[in-house]
Amino acid sequence: MRLAVVGAGAVGRSVVELAGEHGHEVVAVADSSSAVVADSSGSVDAEAVVTRKAERGIVGDADPADALAADYDVLVEATPTTLGDAEPGFSHVRTALERDRHVVLANKGPVAERYGDVQALAADSAGDVRFEATVGGAIPAVSTVEDIEPGHVTAVRGVLNGTANFILTRMAAEGLDYDHVLSEAQDLGVAEADPSFDVDGTDAALKCVILANVLSFGGADDPADAREFSLADASVEGIRDVPGSVLRLAAEDGRTVRLIGEATGETVRVAPRLVHENGTLAVSGTQNIVQIETTHAGRLNISGRGAGGPETASAILGDVGRLR
Amino acid sequence: MRLAVVGAGAVGRSVVELAGEHGHEVVAVADSSSAVVADSSGSVDAEAVVTRKAERGIVGDADPADALAADYDVLVEATPTTLGDAEPGFSHVRTALERDRHVVLANKGPVAERYGDVQALAADSAGDVRFEATVGGAIPAVSTVEDIEPGHVTAVRGVLNGTANFILTRMAAEGLDYDHVLSEAQDLGVAEADPSFDVDGTDAALKCVILANVLSFGGADDPADAREFSLADASVEGIRDVPGSVLRLAAEDGRTVRLIGEATGETVRVAPRLVHENGTLAVSGTQNIVQIETTHAGRLNISGRGAGGPETASAILGDVGRLR
Repeated sequence: MRLAVVGAGAVGRSVVELAGEHGHEVVAVADSSSAVVADSSGSVDAEAVVTRKAERGIVGDADPADALAADYDVLVEATPTTLGDAEPGFSHVRTALERDRHVVLANKGPVAERYGDVQALAADSAGDVRFEATVGGAIPAVSTVEDIEPGHVTAVRGVLNGTANFILTRMAAEGLDYDHVLSEAQDLGVAEADPSFDVDGTDAALKCVILANVLSFGGADDPADAREFSLADASVEGIRDVPGSVLRLAAEDGRTVRLIGEATGETVRVAPRLVHENGTLAVSGTQNIVQIETTHAGRLNISGRGAGGPETASAILGDVGRLR
Repeated sequence: MRLAVVGAGAVGRSVVELAGEHGHEVVAVADSSSAVVADSSGSVDAEAVVTRKAERGIVGDADPADALAADYDVLVEATPTTLGDAEPGFSHVRTALERDRHVVLANKGPVAERYGDVQALAADSAGDVRFEATVGGAIPAVSTVEDIEPGHVTAVRGVLNGTANFILTRMAAEGLDYDHVLSEAQDLGVAEADPSFDVDGTDAALKCVILANVLSFGGADDPADAREFSLADASVEGIRDVPGSVLRLAAEDGRTVRLIGEATGETVRVAPRLVHENGTLAVSGTQNIVQIETTHAGRLNISGRGAGGPETASAILGDVGRLR
């Protein structure tokens, strides 16, 4: 397939670097202010694009609109997640679908905040929309739920944010307080300079909202009747107020604390919870885990790397492989 | 889809009972000596078939050949696994594919012992062959490996036999010896009267052989060049000779013993191994776990129920849903 990659952060760059290995061509790349478009029969020079971005902060001399207008099969939308109207990502999705092209999302905004709008555009398009990379990084959460037929999935829960999980793991392991471990996480690049998206539970909540939409729309006979979720529907509590003392007390009882998100076809909730310290949900460090409750097959647990350029790119390229 | 279900054991009966919920029709059912075929526009009466099998030991008054000749879209092959020539299961697969129908296998024989033959028949047929239910019960092992693109999967390992795992779990938990726990397992219906298939590692080995075939054929540019695996290629050691003393010694070091199977594109090996007692591979009871090593996305772990009528039927119906 020919890919147009919009977004040249860690994820977009990894897609550009790995696409060839999966048998795909990258025909255009764009960041917020620039673009590069291959000539009619070729791909962009992946290495040159990545180097140019690193050295000059741009991917090429063209305009981002040129990438959106290029001749591609799949638009890979890997620009930063935005809330509310989910722009400019939503417009990128709409442009591609109105041109009857496929869309593969790593950007959570369109499917967390405007799921109904995205589904409506996809219904009117010859192109499909896939979004495995929006939930759980390398963990095939969305496709596994889809394969079980959402009507037969009653809930999905898990540890969905590696930054928050790393902090809680380190607090418990070392008996250190939140501020100390947050600094350590920032030094390691595991937490951002402004970590609120992760530590306040927003990132985990967006992923749960996406899963709730999959369950809700998948379980409905008519999409028009399905309840649509957005971040506003989620009950969200982060980890800023988890004191070291709670973790010490929990440990005396063989438990620890993890930031757990849960989605059903009716509710979305993210909060710190006590879990058994050797239990399935007590994954460590930046690992993620997704737990799927099914009607006939009991509980499935899938754990793995939740984030990272190559990991998320793998999820994106897996989605490209599922397109027809 | 219209299903013909061959095999009326726990798995076949569960498929008959659950197919309707998934929007499919069962048009024929056969066991080793009998069959029932619905008239031209309908399904069989699921409840009546299951009751008849329980009370009279047959599913109907027709001949098994009538089921194979019926007008179905998908043949569900759920007869007991046989080794070597994998008959009669292999012939059921060939009959369906030669009629350009799809095949969904729960029977491991054809894809463990004659993978190349099955692939060749499928290549010449309008029908596809799927076999998720042959490995890991409710765990979507095969489809997850396929989605990652097998060239990017370097190994698959795990706990793939619930009977052996139950026995080892109980030996470790209670300090009891193998013979005592085997009797308990048989009383609970977790182990068969003749448990050798499970405790000797044969069942786990067949599943690993199937996975090795998926990796080998998936990673090859030309299927004709792919190395084909069968049970004879597997190095297999079961759990009969694991003494209670080894488990006690292991526990002093924070470890335990699990029957671990591993498949790469080159080797298949099943043997009892020391694992960390709280580690990912140390699943308990009849649970299974599949660990997938990938080139770009690290390690994925998927755990869940490895066996059972409804669980395996879910895997079969999931495969039916993936057919086009």
